[in-house]
Amino acid sequence: MTYADRYKAAGVNIDEANRTVEMMKAAVRATHTPQVLADVGSFGGLYALENLPAGPVLAASTDGVGTKVKLAAELGRWQGIGHDIVNHCINDILVQNARPLFFLDYIAAGKLEPEAVASVVQGMAQACRAAGCALLGGETAEMPGVYAEGAFDVAGTVVGLAARDNLWPRQAEMEPGDLLLGLPSSGPHTNGYSLIRKTVADRDLAQKLEDGQTLADALLAPHKCYVNEIEALLAAGIPIRGLAHITGGGFPDNLPRILPESLAAEIDTAAWEAPPVFRKLTEWSGMSPAEAYRVFNMGMGIAAVIPAGAESAAPAVLPGARIIGRLIPRSPDKPAVQICDLS
Amino acid sequence: MTYADRYKAAGVNIDEANRTVEMMKAAVRATHTPQVLADVGSFGGLYALENLPAGPVLAASTDGVGTKVKLAAELGRWQGIGHDIVNHCINDILVQNARPLFFLDYIAAGKLEPEAVASVVQGMAQACRAAGCALLGGETAEMPGVYAEGAFDVAGTVVGLAARDNLWPRQAEMEPGDLLLGLPSSGPHTNGYSLIRKTVADRDLAQKLEDGQTLADALLAPHKCYVNEIEALLAAGIPIRGLAHITGGGFPDNLPRILPESLAAEIDTAAWEAPPVFRKLTEWSGMSPAEAYRVFNMGMGIAAVIPAGAESAAPAVLPGARIIGRLIPRSPDKPAVQICDLS
Repeated sequence: MTYADRYKAAGVNIDEANRTVEMMKAAVRATHTPQVLADVGSFGGLYALENLPAGPVLAASTDGVGTKVKLAAELGRWQGIGHDIVNHCINDILVQNARPLFFLDYIAAGKLEPEAVASVVQGMAQACRAAGCALLGGETAEMPGVYAEGAFDVAGTVVGLAARDNLWPRQAEMEPGDLLLGLPSSGPHTNGYSLIRKTVADRDLAQKLEDGQTLADALLAPHKCYVNEIEALLAAGIPIRGLAHITGGGFPDNLPRILPESLAAEIDTAAWEAPPVFRKLTEWSGMSPAEAYRVFNMGMGIAAVIPAGAESAAPAVLPGARIIGRLIPRSPDKPAVQICDLS
Repeated sequence: MTYADRYKAAGVNIDEANRTVEMMKAAVRATHTPQVLADVGSFGGLYALENLPAGPVLAASTDGVGTKVKLAAELGRWQGIGHDIVNHCINDILVQNARPLFFLDYIAAGKLEPEAVASVVQGMAQACRAAGCALLGGETAEMPGVYAEGAFDVAGTVVGLAARDNLWPRQAEMEPGDLLLGLPSSGPHTNGYSLIRKTVADRDLAQKLEDGQTLADALLAPHKCYVNEIEALLAAGIPIRGLAHITGGGFPDNLPRILPESLAAEIDTAAWEAPPVFRKLTEWSGMSPAEAYRVFNMGMGIAAVIPAGAESAAPAVLPGARIIGRLIPRSPDKPAVQICDLS
């Protein structure tokens, strides 16, 4: 569906050229790099492949934002959801050393609210633009009877480009003693929201946390995009052997995806302080810390495997980054990820 | 999310290696061409680009199957929905002269039913395989409170490859007198189902239509994929100047997407007989024929623009194909698509 059609589908009269629609169109257009062949046909989006590396590989990922949309809908704050879906998808291919080319979205509801759609699309366009990614197209579906009253869903697909010889992880290069560099998250990102919503159901979302943020702001902080941080590490000559995106399942579920069978990861929880929102969520839900590390990113959205010695350059490039653990030989009787307080 | 994770998310215990899961995994694996780099990482899917044409262009489209999923859910017949979403997406890039490389899906529900997910994924895998398209990945989301009880949604994204010099439509080549070759549809495909469901709400779905099909079978017939038919036309030397995918909005909304400003299309409804399901839906809903042609494909899922004289070869290649209209100069006072009974 073209964007013009989408505005119509959303109940927006494009002929009125109202300000919302114009803003949304301008936001989408602003993501269109010269590779986007926008004027040729309109059934699908077209993207010219240029400057291909040797051994070009496309990386692609589809994701949703989960029940974070419920919280956004309850608070009427949609724009961040657009950032969430784009950045979540981009990070999932960034960890394979791919860079985003374009993104397509899917927004569905029982009854589409034009302002909500416009806000989500604008958020997506902002996030796409910040990452040099074209918002190439998408679909807006109004499906009465499929979605609950007032509910909507947002999903998306990113397609990126990598060079076959540069793909991550490089498991053959990983060895005991390698360090895990944690890159700070902006909050729970898009994970654990069914539990979060249950936990805060009777709490005052306007309450201030220890860091001065309101609980609502902390919970709706958009999923962070790590493209620029990874580029900065690479530009500083820090060799990266693998990246794990710390999403649902936390360190225990996501680090093993990039480790060879022979290696385990030891996470030192004393290496950083989990931000206030994670401490409050853990306290209020009555979870054990071990459980919390299995549900949330606890303040670190990416873990990078780097060789020992390479860490000295990291803080200068990314002040928030921390060594949060290391690789050790894996024992058959121990889990692949050990969460310990080594202080 | 990896397929292994998805089976878990769907409540399927992968360790039990039950027959459903194994069938689903085998079906997905069977779509994996050598270009799929399945063993490298698991956050996104990886696809090696090979044998690129000069001026390579990626074509991409995201779509959903709309409220046809409601009907499938009511009847407990899921597999066709997998074919629907894959074929709908593939046709949307086929009309730009792109061929599918890979597909990613999104399946969401309030509560995922493992057998429904398995059936949909198997249907998608079958459709992907038939089109030489890899089922590269996807996301399965369980979102209580977002979806209505028992409802689910299915969306997907296809990415295909085209050569810049061969893109359709070729508007500069189109001229008055060009013919419209209609390629038969398998039914309403994925369009008009909100209206269809209302229309058949009190009807016996087991009733036989004039052609011997039950109403349920006619309504759930999967969206047809036109890749092989288009390849057959090209192989027979029939020059194609443009293709329109006749989806929501019928001929009046979809043909103008490929026509130059100077040309209109005249559809001769006497050129073919609309299949029984369309005649019944029109009769039961009380729509005028003009309205029906605006909602449904009325038996033709693709309209191809070909030069006059080229039609003689078509019936030998595709017996069901028919000349259903022609291009005429556009007048400012007439619509771009005129539906007429020229008999």
